[in-house]
Amino acid sequence: MPDIAADPTAPRVRGEYRKTARRREEIVDAALAVFSRVGYLNSSMSEIAKTVGLTVPGLTHHYPSKADLLAALFDRRDLDANQYVAGRSGLDILRGLVEIAQRDEEDAALTRMYAILAAEATDPAHPAHEYFKRRYAFILGHVEGAFTQVAAAGLLRPGMTPTEAARAYVAFSDGLQLQVLYDPQDVSQPTAVRRLLEGFLTTPL
Amino acid sequence: MPDIAADPTAPRVRGEYRKTARRREEIVDAALAVFSRVGYLNSSMSEIAKTVGLTVPGLTHHYPSKADLLAALFDRRDLDANQYVAGRSGLDILRGLVEIAQRDEEDAALTRMYAILAAEATDPAHPAHEYFKRRYAFILGHVEGAFTQVAAAGLLRPGMTPTEAARAYVAFSDGLQLQVLYDPQDVSQPTAVRRLLEGFLTTPL
Repeated sequence: MPDIAADPTAPRVRGEYRKTARRREEIVDAALAVFSRVGYLNSSMSEIAKTVGLTVPGLTHHYPSKADLLAALFDRRDLDANQYVAGRSGLDILRGLVEIAQRDEEDAALTRMYAILAAEATDPAHPAHEYFKRRYAFILGHVEGAFTQVAAAGLLRPGMTPTEAARAYVAFSDGLQLQVLYDPQDVSQPTAVRRLLEGFLTTPL
Repeated sequence: MPDIAADPTAPRVRGEYRKTARRREEIVDAALAVFSRVGYLNSSMSEIAKTVGLTVPGLTHHYPSKADLLAALFDRRDLDANQYVAGRSGLDILRGLVEIAQRDEEDAALTRMYAILAAEATDPAHPAHEYFKRRYAFILGHVEGAFTQVAAAGLLRPGMTPTEAARAYVAFSDGLQLQVLYDPQDVSQPTAVRRLLEGFLTTPL
């Protein structure tokens, strides 16, 4: 079996692959821009194709449906969020949540799309419903785990439970994004999240 | 000038008026049902007309546009919310907020519509954008006023400001609605709001 580097066609193939990967990234960016502007339900493949300078068949060659584009967007977002909490525990996960709030504040388009989709997808018939249901359960479980470690270290405020603290963080964080979108100057998202979390603790973060 | 009751045509006119008023309520109910299912942007006058058993001209006779229907829905909702806080002050307004959470929990369709609309309308071009911007400013101001009275009575937790407490309540409340919609069994909205508010106070509510 020939070594790949020795295959005279390989550089061209790898070049094509890189080009395709870049094209797919551009398409996912375009889908994000369109979903962020009009929501998922209200958007069309033809609008996404136009945004990225493709025909509809050119677009469906890469992503057969809107649902595929949505899945690609979610994959990208989840990979990114994981970086902030992977390999951390207890208080350090809570610090990761403050960093996520910083990221959300810096990326208003993505934040808007998530806010719209999370609301649209409360309908069980929505294509993203199961994704969000799982996502909420996952995040709540993960943050509850962090608060459980914090409680074991004696750093949770008396009367507060890890479950309640996790729910409050997720609710506050979702709602805060709306306030920031209506009045960007007025709220610092990471500061507000840090202050909320510190309210549940007997220690500064 | 004849007394209205002495006018022989009045009972019929009043009957017509009542009938029209009832019809208009039914139309607003239908708009609510459609907006709640698919969002405002994605809904059509023809779908709303069909839901209430009217033709499109029959519908536009009462409400010329979707924006008029939205305004009617908001008016109804605002009138209703006012009942919970009018004539109250300080801690008693905070108790009104717990009652509003109870109402929201009982009316999942309206809650869904508000969650979707509030997210959609973060786009400055959305017809409800100015409404929500004003609504957020009004609610934040009102709740901040309540917390200011609570602080003057020495009942606000040290280190917490009325502004921060008001923002946290509004954010938490918006986000909590999403959690309830994804997992209705698991969260009691009024209890969660009461617990959050009590976390900002040095007294039970």
